[in-house]
Amino acid sequence: MKDLGYYNGKYDLIENMVIPMNDRVCYFGDGVYDATYSKNHKIYMLDAHIDRFFSSAEKLKMVIPHTKEELKKLLCDLVSKVDDGEQFVYWQLTRGTAPRNHAIARPLVPGNLWVMLRPAKTQAINRKLKLITMPDTRFLHCDIKTLNLIPAVMASDAAALAGCDETVFHRDGRVTECAHSNVHIIKDGVFRTAPTDNLILPGIARANLIRFCGMLGIPVCEEPFSIDELMNADEVIVSSSGSFCLEAVEIDGKPVGGKAPELLRSIQDTAVKDFEESTK
Amino acid sequence: MKDLGYYNGKYDLIENMVIPMNDRVCYFGDGVYDATYSKNHKIYMLDAHIDRFFSSAEKLKMVIPHTKEELKKLLCDLVSKVDDGEQFVYWQLTRGTAPRNHAIARPLVPGNLWVMLRPAKTQAINRKLKLITMPDTRFLHCDIKTLNLIPAVMASDAAALAGCDETVFHRDGRVTECAHSNVHIIKDGVFRTAPTDNLILPGIARANLIRFCGMLGIPVCEEPFSIDELMNADEVIVSSSGSFCLEAVEIDGKPVGGKAPELLRSIQDTAVKDFEESTK
Repeated sequence: MKDLGYYNGKYDLIENMVIPMNDRVCYFGDGVYDATYSKNHKIYMLDAHIDRFFSSAEKLKMVIPHTKEELKKLLCDLVSKVDDGEQFVYWQLTRGTAPRNHAIARPLVPGNLWVMLRPAKTQAINRKLKLITMPDTRFLHCDIKTLNLIPAVMASDAAALAGCDETVFHRDGRVTECAHSNVHIIKDGVFRTAPTDNLILPGIARANLIRFCGMLGIPVCEEPFSIDELMNADEVIVSSSGSFCLEAVEIDGKPVGGKAPELLRSIQDTAVKDFEESTK
Repeated sequence: MKDLGYYNGKYDLIENMVIPMNDRVCYFGDGVYDATYSKNHKIYMLDAHIDRFFSSAEKLKMVIPHTKEELKKLLCDLVSKVDDGEQFVYWQLTRGTAPRNHAIARPLVPGNLWVMLRPAKTQAINRKLKLITMPDTRFLHCDIKTLNLIPAVMASDAAALAGCDETVFHRDGRVTECAHSNVHIIKDGVFRTAPTDNLILPGIARANLIRFCGMLGIPVCEEPFSIDELMNADEVIVSSSGSFCLEAVEIDGKPVGGKAPELLRSIQDTAVKDFEESTK
């Protein structure tokens, strides 16, 4: 198959798939998701993504209709049905199907499980990004990977209209994260990244970067940093499951980073090697 | 028909309706909605709800595939197909159907129009509500009636688990609104309600209450009020399109209001009369 959409046991090409109008996603965006990439039918960092998915569901009192092992097996089975090469591996849980009503029915029942697979390549590691900044007006539950993503949509649109690649959010001067990535800096040899509180998603790629820094002997500081510190960093790094460790070279039209290219390169090389070795 | 679901020109009983997996609501909750009630096939406050719906869509750069007049005619036509009595009249726009991608495609194209109708009665005006309070952790775009409603879902669940009817949100001590209603107080003969900024939805029922106060000679103050002022109000009033002007008698287990029953009753009577006369 060239791509695959799955919903509660049924699957087909995505364009052929339909879902009930009363799925709670339709009225409330009431769901959580996770996503990563596969290569050669091997899903990168699957355990970590499954753990985060279960954590997101639990925080919103959603019940996943599978164990972690069952879900991993299901995803691996579905990935094997789609053509070779790199794939975007996306799955989500919505809080069941029922006539529109804000309240959550008791007893809690398992939600609807969705999977969406399609060919997509991870980004070239030498890609250089241009960013814009924007006040972070999102809700205070950014640690949960929900389907309430309108602010991310609008921020992505603002970046695109500015001819840029991503938007950096800041809250009261503190850098939080990007619209659909985490953002980090290198300053004076230290890798700095915002702490994993309720203001950012605990990125798997972010955790990987911390792990790689450990392997490389690069000190890591998980403390908030400011827009000023971002603009004056030695390097600015954007990470997500599809862009392991990309360099940002411009923010709001001003050049940034470029002052610690060897450190940056060493992390990038480690990231690419980790992906390639895990999926070969 | 006992109820009706409509999607881009097709309609059927809601339970028979399906939508494409690639509707952007499925991945981003990327849509806006509005809702009111009809009686005797007459839709209450339709112009105001249509105006707000267009305003919500415009703020998020969504394109409605109809003029206001066309949409009003469509809703009235559909309402006439459903059984007599009171109906919940709900409609929404989602930002089109396309493979998952945060960015908004250019040129902008019309979105998908949904309608959902079902039998439902407006609430008895003498119903007395119990409320809980909760910090307002929602995004800063509460003036837009979006489908990003997980915080409202969770707050509604918290109220239900506490044996209560609604949750009052507060931000830094300031009362904003409820999970799916506006909240107001009467104090020393003045009707007080939060101003319509980005922290609350500009409720049509709220606007009606201000209009009724004008008719009744009750002064109105649109300034923020605090949780303390809420707890010590002469009356606490909750309003939505389905509950025009309900009295709250308890908040977080403490008795509230009940000190200006005649003023309250005069507003309630005016609200009920307005609905009945508009839909007879």
